[in-house]
Amino acid sequence: MRIDILSAVPELLESPLNHSILKRAQAKGLAEIVVHNIRDYTLDKHKKIDDYAFGFSSGMVMQIEPIDRLITHLKEQRDYDEVIYTSPDGEMFNQKMANSMSLLNNVIVLCGHYKGIDHRIREHLITKEVSVGDFVLTGGELAACIMTDAIVRLIPGAMSDEQSALSDCFQDDLLAPPVYSRPAEYKGWKVPEILLSGNEAKIKEWEYEQAVERTKRLRPDLLKGLR
Amino acid sequence: MRIDILSAVPELLESPLNHSILKRAQAKGLAEIVVHNIRDYTLDKHKKIDDYAFGFSSGMVMQIEPIDRLITHLKEQRDYDEVIYTSPDGEMFNQKMANSMSLLNNVIVLCGHYKGIDHRIREHLITKEVSVGDFVLTGGELAACIMTDAIVRLIPGAMSDEQSALSDCFQDDLLAPPVYSRPAEYKGWKVPEILLSGNEAKIKEWEYEQAVERTKRLRPDLLKGLR
Repeated sequence: MRIDILSAVPELLESPLNHSILKRAQAKGLAEIVVHNIRDYTLDKHKKIDDYAFGFSSGMVMQIEPIDRLITHLKEQRDYDEVIYTSPDGEMFNQKMANSMSLLNNVIVLCGHYKGIDHRIREHLITKEVSVGDFVLTGGELAACIMTDAIVRLIPGAMSDEQSALSDCFQDDLLAPPVYSRPAEYKGWKVPEILLSGNEAKIKEWEYEQAVERTKRLRPDLLKGLR
Repeated sequence: MRIDILSAVPELLESPLNHSILKRAQAKGLAEIVVHNIRDYTLDKHKKIDDYAFGFSSGMVMQIEPIDRLITHLKEQRDYDEVIYTSPDGEMFNQKMANSMSLLNNVIVLCGHYKGIDHRIREHLITKEVSVGDFVLTGGELAACIMTDAIVRLIPGAMSDEQSALSDCFQDDLLAPPVYSRPAEYKGWKVPEILLSGNEAKIKEWEYEQAVERTKRLRPDLLKGLR
């Protein structure tokens, strides 16, 4: 899978995309993540890619021309399944979307910045708008990192068995059960005895009950699918 | 405001925390963001901070001892308003939470990793669990970056006037209206004429209508507050 990330501050993306699972997935050839600096595609001699908004709103708006030139350049080289724009008013990103996106071949992710991007970009060049949550970020770069991380780790081979996604939260609409590790007692705080029993069937049952209980208490909305 | 981020992969946080608004807010003394390597607080000679889970689950669990030592060390130096754990089953992070957190003085954010953290940490050391969305990330680092970015940019003085948060999405439970910048026509795609009219009252009215229309169409749930 190839992900092209278009950004006005590509240096912000450097460390998240080059550590941990994303680093390993790229090293193994499972994912190719290419960051493009939108400024390289402006014809403006000062490398300016934003300008005042028409009307009276405050805030700078990312202009259509450099972004169109960059996307056109990429599309000349390969077919893209989606051209995504990260925006707080997009479709909410979740594990289901991460699962289906992990099956795509080529994806462009455009990171917004400043007050927004020229709306014609969204109307004519973007195929999917995605939000990572109901909050406002300085730019779309962190949203792009989150999407990339959540998607790439699902590509078969990206995680080792120990990191298996099968028992992750949401994969079966249940929150994960509590986990514990050594020491069995710390400052008087003990690990539940059942987990030390060695009885696999009973432990699995306890884990399922805990997962259901936690989901009922903390995220009852997730359980709708079970009824 | 001071934010202490506790991580097993602190190098992953480097670029997001040191660019753009977060960089400027720190330079201006508005925010102090300190990243701690949990590995510096283990007594294990191999700097190991994770171990197998009790029971039969796959996946490594972050152990209680190094994290307890690090949090204890921090608490000896100052009072913390919250000790936050980033987890997909926490309370959903949103703009309202960002607003109220931007008023706090000292906050610890613990980034989870691997399959999870020893549940006793969550029971005894954490005061608030926060999720940035219904998806699974390799670790809590990106969630911590997102929270930090969304919170710090709201601290008065962090943004310039041009970046004013007042017209952001969600600040008034409405999505932002479309924005446009030069050129007024590009490849035959035109900016709405009203925005070129110079009539401020009419433009403001149009922007409000567009914001309401977009919210009704894309995020009707946000409008509940308006009824």
